[in-house]
Amino acid sequence: MSNSARFPAPKSKSESEEGTVFAPQFDAEGLLPVVATSAKTGEVLMLAYMNEEALARTIETGEAHYWSRSRGRLWRKGEESGNSQRVVELRTDCDQDAIWLKVETAGAEAACHTGRRSCFYRMIPVGAASAGGMSLSFVEAERQFDPEAAYRHADAAKGTLKSSE
Amino acid sequence: MSNSARFPAPKSKSESEEGTVFAPQFDAEGLLPVVATSAKTGEVLMLAYMNEEALARTIETGEAHYWSRSRGRLWRKGEESGNSQRVVELRTDCDQDAIWLKVETAGAEAACHTGRRSCFYRMIPVGAASAGGMSLSFVEAERQFDPEAAYRHADAAKGTLKSSE
Repeated sequence: MSNSARFPAPKSKSESEEGTVFAPQFDAEGLLPVVATSAKTGEVLMLAYMNEEALARTIETGEAHYWSRSRGRLWRKGEESGNSQRVVELRTDCDQDAIWLKVETAGAEAACHTGRRSCFYRMIPVGAASAGGMSLSFVEAERQFDPEAAYRHADAAKGTLKSSE
Repeated sequence: MSNSARFPAPKSKSESEEGTVFAPQFDAEGLLPVVATSAKTGEVLMLAYMNEEALARTIETGEAHYWSRSRGRLWRKGEESGNSQRVVELRTDCDQDAIWLKVETAGAEAACHTGRRSCFYRMIPVGAASAGGMSLSFVEAERQFDPEAAYRHADAAKGTLKSSE
């Protein structure tokens, strides 16, 4: 997938690291990993991906757009759940192959499709603590909304409610 | 690349999202994206990748290990620069295909090979501000160490100093 349409082609290492030209490096699938953090609390909310179009729309509109790898389509965050993300700041990294968004979430303060504030709601013990095994512990895992109700409502609104529901 | 050796095979969607078994989903190249944030300030320091071995070593030792895609090898963060990362907390996300590390950095408070605290030292204007163009602005971009000196020292110590240096 070419990124020549909307963004300049990636530059040399020194231009990429020390320059002011935004020339993002998409991977072989045309994607970039994106970290979204809460502008309010700083916590990491989610890790997702953008293709060229998602990145361009995010920049133009100030609303986070991602590429859904599982659904194979562009996706405006919150289009179904209502929990859209207004981008307060967008940064790129040294080699311009990753994006950091600081966002304000509309609606329920929830970035995760499971209804939780952050997708990172489980912890793995490390170091000496890992000797006891690698069982996951839930942390800050309260649901801010009921995912079944939220997505069923969205499906119904679009007329794509499955007959079994 | 199989991840059956050190971690269980990925589970069903519901077990992956709501279970306590850590069964990370590596991508087709056997890698997982990893966000490292400062345990002190909360800022995003870097986005890197782990393979199965890097993840296992990070968990066992409590020191961040990554897979360098450019060098094609396992890498203990700080092995050259001295800026190692002690893992204060390790989390995984809903579908267990990403990792969040909260770290304390040893030595200079710098995660970036350019000498900066964070790799995300440039901002791109969004929304209405983007109409003026997509030029990058430097933010919090002070160098905490001189990368040339740091890596030259490391090369010299290993006896791999290039004759031109």
